[in-house]
Amino acid sequence: MKLDTDPYKGVRDFYPKDKAQLMHFFSTITDVLTKYGYSQYDASPLERAELYEAKTGEEIVNEQTYTFTDRGDRKVTLRPEMTPTLARMAAKKRRDMPFPLRWFSIGNRFRYERPQKGRLREFYQADVDLVGAPEGEADLEIIRVGRDILRAFGAGEETYSIRVNSRTLLTAACEASDIPEKNHQAYMKLLDKKNKISGEDFEFKTKELMNGEITPLSAIETAKDKTVAEEKEKLQTFIATLKERGVSNVVYDPTLVRGFDYYTGIIFEFFDTDPSNTRSLFGGGRYDNLLSLFSNDSIPAVGFAVGDVTLKDFLETHDLLPDIKINPNVYMATPSVENIPAAQEFANNLREEGLSVFVNLTDKKLEKQIKNAEKRNIEMVIVYGEDETKGSMVTLKNIRTGQELETKKDNVVDLISESL
Amino acid sequence: MKLDTDPYKGVRDFYPKDKAQLMHFFSTITDVLTKYGYSQYDASPLERAELYEAKTGEEIVNEQTYTFTDRGDRKVTLRPEMTPTLARMAAKKRRDMPFPLRWFSIGNRFRYERPQKGRLREFYQADVDLVGAPEGEADLEIIRVGRDILRAFGAGEETYSIRVNSRTLLTAACEASDIPEKNHQAYMKLLDKKNKISGEDFEFKTKELMNGEITPLSAIETAKDKTVAEEKEKLQTFIATLKERGVSNVVYDPTLVRGFDYYTGIIFEFFDTDPSNTRSLFGGGRYDNLLSLFSNDSIPAVGFAVGDVTLKDFLETHDLLPDIKINPNVYMATPSVENIPAAQEFANNLREEGLSVFVNLTDKKLEKQIKNAEKRNIEMVIVYGEDETKGSMVTLKNIRTGQELETKKDNVVDLISESL
Repeated sequence: MKLDTDPYKGVRDFYPKDKAQLMHFFSTITDVLTKYGYSQYDASPLERAELYEAKTGEEIVNEQTYTFTDRGDRKVTLRPEMTPTLARMAAKKRRDMPFPLRWFSIGNRFRYERPQKGRLREFYQADVDLVGAPEGEADLEIIRVGRDILRAFGAGEETYSIRVNSRTLLTAACEASDIPEKNHQAYMKLLDKKNKISGEDFEFKTKELMNGEITPLSAIETAKDKTVAEEKEKLQTFIATLKERGVSNVVYDPTLVRGFDYYTGIIFEFFDTDPSNTRSLFGGGRYDNLLSLFSNDSIPAVGFAVGDVTLKDFLETHDLLPDIKINPNVYMATPSVENIPAAQEFANNLREEGLSVFVNLTDKKLEKQIKNAEKRNIEMVIVYGEDETKGSMVTLKNIRTGQELETKKDNVVDLISESL
Repeated sequence: MKLDTDPYKGVRDFYPKDKAQLMHFFSTITDVLTKYGYSQYDASPLERAELYEAKTGEEIVNEQTYTFTDRGDRKVTLRPEMTPTLARMAAKKRRDMPFPLRWFSIGNRFRYERPQKGRLREFYQADVDLVGAPEGEADLEIIRVGRDILRAFGAGEETYSIRVNSRTLLTAACEASDIPEKNHQAYMKLLDKKNKISGEDFEFKTKELMNGEITPLSAIETAKDKTVAEEKEKLQTFIATLKERGVSNVVYDPTLVRGFDYYTGIIFEFFDTDPSNTRSLFGGGRYDNLLSLFSNDSIPAVGFAVGDVTLKDFLETHDLLPDIKINPNVYMATPSVENIPAAQEFANNLREEGLSVFVNLTDKKLEKQIKNAEKRNIEMVIVYGEDETKGSMVTLKNIRTGQELETKKDNVVDLISESL
């Protein structure tokens, strides 16, 4: 019986082309963040389970995590998201580090859910956070950073919109409404699903939670309640400021809730404007109380995450997915296996000068070796035999164009570098 | 009750300096491998447990893996090593890819063991493999690649030695010895520990496994058995060839066994010559049968892995660990919070030209902001207030030297780029 070659259910294998694409995502994101002064941190995907039991939103902990007990009877979770880890690490060294922290992390996250389009059991995320700065400028920067990341991928502001809402406004609206407090959380969950159900269904289910006429959404619209009016104005000012600062594609979305319980202020999601791609690209918000789970210091924070699967779908939709080249510069073919040692030696000279050289190690015929180079998308071939070993000349052959050029060995690096 | 800020037992947090060091390891290794034409692949750390039950060496599967059952009753293992994954992936697409594969992967591996120096429950490894080329040139290349990686870190050949042995020789020696076949594996395990126990202890335990006088080691020394003599000569030739090709620090180590069951030919380890660092730095070998677990095609392969913990210990021992700088180029201080929007705007101009700029977002006094820049090791500070916003000039202040320079805003990028 042979073993199955498939990966574990719901996770992906990254063959070189896939990995190169992933690395391209990461390096593009890293470049933007570095310019804003963000530094990369990381942690193990293994976390103590209690980290997610506190403030992460119940659905995730109970149904959607990989949680198991280790042999030392410790409850371990494969991290479903990075924010609790960030909060833990920032709290741990809060006395030793200069705040604010501009931090980011890129890595895999795990969710135990039924695999479907855009949702996998393992996916990659870049998490970007600004810890230790109050609302206002920090929130504006974070959203602008998100915009700049998409811009770095070539995405103009017409390709996505930034939906913004405020948790403080939502809370005030719930309090000003005829929904009793015990139903506030149920209402938030319902609101989160508003765009996925019919208007009638939403209305009916809202009524079930109420004991009067004023819904949170109508409380926001009329703004008769003083706190609601204040929070509404604050949000409007925030959106106006973003526009003034050149982020034009911001819209207020009263139904935006975000799943996690820890948000306390501005929340936002970046949405593809193409209706065929309806998932949130980026999501984030302000979470001013998360660090207080670990220490008595209150440290305000804001951040967002972007996932590789939704990013790829978005870039594909808008024809922005680049074809990453990962082929070596030169394929060294050898007429016979006896030529391999000398070919490797010459290849090492080229490598020392910075070229990437793939040397044949088989006893296959030259013809087959050239076919092999073709399959690898390597254009430049050098056949390295007796004459080339003893002499000072080699022939560069471009197998795509058929062009051949005899040259001194010493000139190979320059010639190939020019043609790149 | 506050939550604990420590990470899960036996794993590490990577604060920005630690992460930068890890990334430096990875990029140095990647550079060398790219020059040899190796491409990066990857897979999820979640693997079906059966992958490790077959041929990985029993200790690892039974005692040293994180294995759990998921809600779909699948047995899942957090990968303890990459080679079985590589074999699975190579076998899966063996019809679609040009062989040989020169592949590498960098990522985390998990072992459930008692944390101790150099051994953690999660560590990073770079795995380098050449799949689809027979013994000989491929083995020589792989060892040379290992040498070049250490060279790229600045390590000369006097800082480590390359211990080489052959599994075929060991097998032939066992067969030529007076150890009955049922005890061969026990003998290999004993041999593996030879350097950790006393000579008498080793001799005593060897005797227990034997029913005669000839030990495998004496069979190798006398080389009276024909197969042993052939294998011994082959290994000697291999070592001599490595030396001819410029890898001078190779030694034959008859006690080298390597833990994994899948090795079939040459095996090797790179050892620090400093006696204070006694663990293997790199380890690898030839495994010609592993892919046949997945398919009927027999595909020969050779490879090695290098771990981040042992690499760091080695570089530290030889004073080769570089101090990686991760600080932004400029700190923008603001006399008042009202200046922040304009400071961000000017910062964005600098960022577009490639600089990394950290903008103050607090209402702290200038003095405190400068202290903050110092703590971040940012040398260059620009105070951006009213005058700077309205005018065309700014002052660059090097807070390490105290030097100040008033300059046009347009010249800032050039001036700072020069000083880098």
